[in-house]
Amino acid sequence: MPSREVTVAVLGATGAVGEQILRNLEERSIPIKELRLLASARSAGKKVRFKGEEVEVQEATPESFEGVDIALFSAGGGVSEKFAPEAVKRGAVVVDNTNAFRMDPEVPLVVPEVNGDQIRHHKGIIANPNCSTIQMVVALKPLFDRFGFDRVIVSTYQAVSGSGAQAMEELTEQSRAALEGRQGPREIMPVGKLSKHYPIAFNTIPQCDVAQDNGYTLEEMKMIRETKKIFDDESIGVTATCVRVPVFRGHSESVYVELKEEFDLAEVRQILKEGEGIILQDDIANQEYPMPLDTSGRDEVFVGRVRKDTVNSRGLNLWVVSDNLLKGAATNAVQIAEKLVSQDSQ
Amino acid sequence: MPSREVTVAVLGATGAVGEQILRNLEERSIPIKELRLLASARSAGKKVRFKGEEVEVQEATPESFEGVDIALFSAGGGVSEKFAPEAVKRGAVVVDNTNAFRMDPEVPLVVPEVNGDQIRHHKGIIANPNCSTIQMVVALKPLFDRFGFDRVIVSTYQAVSGSGAQAMEELTEQSRAALEGRQGPREIMPVGKLSKHYPIAFNTIPQCDVAQDNGYTLEEMKMIRETKKIFDDESIGVTATCVRVPVFRGHSESVYVELKEEFDLAEVRQILKEGEGIILQDDIANQEYPMPLDTSGRDEVFVGRVRKDTVNSRGLNLWVVSDNLLKGAATNAVQIAEKLVSQDSQ
Repeated sequence: MPSREVTVAVLGATGAVGEQILRNLEERSIPIKELRLLASARSAGKKVRFKGEEVEVQEATPESFEGVDIALFSAGGGVSEKFAPEAVKRGAVVVDNTNAFRMDPEVPLVVPEVNGDQIRHHKGIIANPNCSTIQMVVALKPLFDRFGFDRVIVSTYQAVSGSGAQAMEELTEQSRAALEGRQGPREIMPVGKLSKHYPIAFNTIPQCDVAQDNGYTLEEMKMIRETKKIFDDESIGVTATCVRVPVFRGHSESVYVELKEEFDLAEVRQILKEGEGIILQDDIANQEYPMPLDTSGRDEVFVGRVRKDTVNSRGLNLWVVSDNLLKGAATNAVQIAEKLVSQDSQ
Repeated sequence: MPSREVTVAVLGATGAVGEQILRNLEERSIPIKELRLLASARSAGKKVRFKGEEVEVQEATPESFEGVDIALFSAGGGVSEKFAPEAVKRGAVVVDNTNAFRMDPEVPLVVPEVNGDQIRHHKGIIANPNCSTIQMVVALKPLFDRFGFDRVIVSTYQAVSGSGAQAMEELTEQSRAALEGRQGPREIMPVGKLSKHYPIAFNTIPQCDVAQDNGYTLEEMKMIRETKKIFDDESIGVTATCVRVPVFRGHSESVYVELKEEFDLAEVRQILKEGEGIILQDDIANQEYPMPLDTSGRDEVFVGRVRKDTVNSRGLNLWVVSDNLLKGAATNAVQIAEKLVSQDSQ
């Protein structure tokens, strides 16, 4: 049956993720009655194109959410903490792309391909997981269903767009400067709010997000905690090393997973090939494997380099690449919104 | 006692590694009577500076090795296969930086900090391990001695200079082109001799070296096989994912090692700090960790991000960075040559 038309608000509409949310809303199936673009006072007044028309960005206030059905938030954790309760109070369902509510036991943490059924349990807020978590759990889901697994050891190769549009600009300027033998700006990477900044151009930085007391970074702990919550299995042991690399868009991940039983590699490939939201690109003999430049602008999760550990017959290596701004953020949020709308109209 | 003076030949003197071998020979302690710079016919006649003087590069022939004591080879596997027997026949000891003889049971595969005692067992050829193996085994050696380990799961972030000077030029040109919105040259990466070439600028490529029948790449199999041989322990299970990243110099590695017993993290840090050839740079709270831009031009192996697995109390994460042209190639070869000279003079 046709879904009812909804009023959608996008908070953080001028950011790197907000822009991709708008592209997604243009392309996907949510019937939009009214679209409200919200941002900080600094961005208010900007004009943004949506379906061929110019829409003016308004400063977010609690009243901005009056009459809103679905509010997509991607303006930072502090902004979410401030405005999510206001939006919920006014009857909106918030799909929050920040870290603010992800581990709140009252808030479903949803990747539609993995645990889309959790959406119906929301109490006003649904959290979108961290980008590096989303693509990993999509790749692991069909293996979890068929074999189960105990342990995941993941090393990431994360694009700078995970730190926003300014970080992309910094990589551009640093790269240009390095090629000309100059030093470029160092103001954002690895973490804008920290005191030390390092060049990312032609470098790797083994820090995404702030340090935690246990020696891990917050990004690493997000992957560890969120994976357990999404699979609803506290026994899953994840260890992660999160690294920034000089790529604009598309996170890559080297994922080692120890399945609960021995497996046939051909069966694993078939399962991945049929997995929801996955494109298997796995033929090293013909140099076929996922790379971030190819997956940029795509909504799916790409999996390749599927290999059995040479020693441990339950150990499986995967190379997982996805567009961190799309499936890692905007696409996943809009997919949740779509499910909300279709549930609502059933 | 003072070592005797030796005649040294460098085959591949004009390549990316050859150049670093010359810088190393200038800085280190080998007393050189005569230096012969050898290369293919194409590079013959070039002049190279050594200790302030110009030395002319000669075309390598079997006769080039007459009177040579130590020959340092880094001109590709095929060249080594052709000339190593000729050099040995004429009394030289060959330190070979290619893959040609590494797994030959008659040839010691040496990283001085790890198994320098193997040098004395040579029969004319000593192999220098693969760059990505060398830095990993240096970092693991003190842990191997204290705890032992069964399993290593490594993901690499490898610099383009591992594919030679032309690959560095390609990254430069591709980066410049991408920043100007053009497509740059695509002739070398990921593997020059294969048919498909992909951009490495602002990308990651999960292929270093050619594919093997088991789905691994040769680079990955080198790490697996060489680690067992260097530690002289066939029971060590290594699985590797080798990835090229847009970095000019310096390989990074995310290394997960499962020790044979539970460990105290403070002890592990102390052991690494005292480890031969290692610089521990591990303080995430103060944003201190190794990065390739900082380690470029340094001879040591840098270790940071030392963390215990949150689940497996025998699991240890390390971030290991080293200059692939130095400790990964030239420095290790010259260190072997130094040991040869000092053994000889004892």
